Amino acid sequence: MSEFVPTNRTGVVRHPERAIYDRQRIYSILDEAFICHVGYVIERQPFVIPMVYGRSGDRIFLHGSALSRTLCSLAEGIDACVTVTLVDGLVLARSAFRHSINYRSVVILGKARPVTDPAEKFEALQCVTNHVSAGRWDEVRQPDEAEMMSTGVLVMALNEVSAKSRSGFPIDLERDLSLPVWAGVIPVRMELGEPVADTHVPVDVPVVDKNKFTRST
Amino acid sequence: MSEFVPTNRTGVVRHPERAIYDRQRIYSILDEAFICHVGYVIERQPFVIPMVYGRSGDRIFLHGSALSRTLCSLAEGIDACVTVTLVDGLVLARSAFRHSINYRSVVILGKARPVTDPAEKFEALQCVTNHVSAGRWDEVRQPDEAEMMSTGVLVMALNEVSAKSRSGFPIDLERDLSLPVWAGVIPVRMELGEPVADTHVPVDVPVVDKNKFTRST
Repeated sequence: MSEFVPTNRTGVVRHPERAIYDRQRIYSILDEAFICHVGYVIERQPFVIPMVYGRSGDRIFLHGSALSRTLCSLAEGIDACVTVTLVDGLVLARSAFRHSINYRSVVILGKARPVTDPAEKFEALQCVTNHVSAGRWDEVRQPDEAEMMSTGVLVMALNEVSAKSRSGFPIDLERDLSLPVWAGVIPVRMELGEPVADTHVPVDVPVVDKNKFTRST
Repeated sequence: MSEFVPTNRTGVVRHPERAIYDRQRIYSILDEAFICHVGYVIERQPFVIPMVYGRSGDRIFLHGSALSRTLCSLAEGIDACVTVTLVDGLVLARSAFRHSINYRSVVILGKARPVTDPAEKFEALQCVTNHVSAGRWDEVRQPDEAEMMSTGVLVMALNEVSAKSRSGFPIDLERDLSLPVWAGVIPVRMELGEPVADTHVPVDVPVVDKNKFTRST
């Protein structure tokens, strides 16, 4: 199916014109970002923890220390929410009230499942590594058995998903348009700086090309 | 007090060397970022929603449509978690396992309270506006009564708070150091692009100085 079906939990109510249910558009947001905020509940208290992730088809993978509270809690199959947000711009209007942010965000509801099959787990880690740093997996030493053991991996299906986005200029009131105030958008983007090598890199090893890791927009 | 007191809910267990409880350092993270991810629970399902915020002393303010589900739910005083994350770098190691992210993140637990006193609400909106876009409040038309009515504002005290940060180079195994692989850090930062005016800005109005809105690092 090319669209996610909004549920009473993911359907966008406020600003329905900002809703995105199209699968490919949602995938492109998930592919551009690499940090998600994972929400889960312990004894009625919600926790929201930033994590990296990877996407493969209609699944996302999370990983971390096999001992982490977040991972262990999620592995029990409790209700979770994974949210991914890209900030695209500051929207400066002529009135304070009309100020806004241009953004794209995805909300994924569901339960995570631990990935225990060694081959599947290996592929999931490859997916996460390459999601953050394209092509890196094949350039580095891959995990040995001990490292695999100490890493926890979770998979979450992309079933109950929606996204929301705002783009474009401020929407000022007609009566404010003549105010002597600059109004418009200041684009926001994530930039990568120049790579800084650690002291152990042999002199004949070329500097990594940071453009490989640039997120498309 | 100059330090937050870790509780069994905010104390950092994994990588305790990454923990931050110092109030000023935590404030500086909150002041540099402007997007938070707010977690709350409805019928056992956690939701994580991106919002802008502002900080004033030992409180943060959230705002949005007075009708938004998130705001109305939080206004009831349910348990919430507000998480703020800054990404500082991609940490490229010689083994997949040792890859990491340099980051600073703050987790705030507590309950929000609606701000209803008109003067306090006005100040809260000023705080949020200037938090995102420094000095903007005094340059634009401030909210009228109808706009104030349709805006919901919440305040959350900074009581149960902790932060976590990673910085610096990858920590590779001794036996991996001789691998012919580039390793180090690629800095990540949020950049502001050139302001784009909408079509109504009078020609004699100077372009906004985007550097006013640059986040310090």
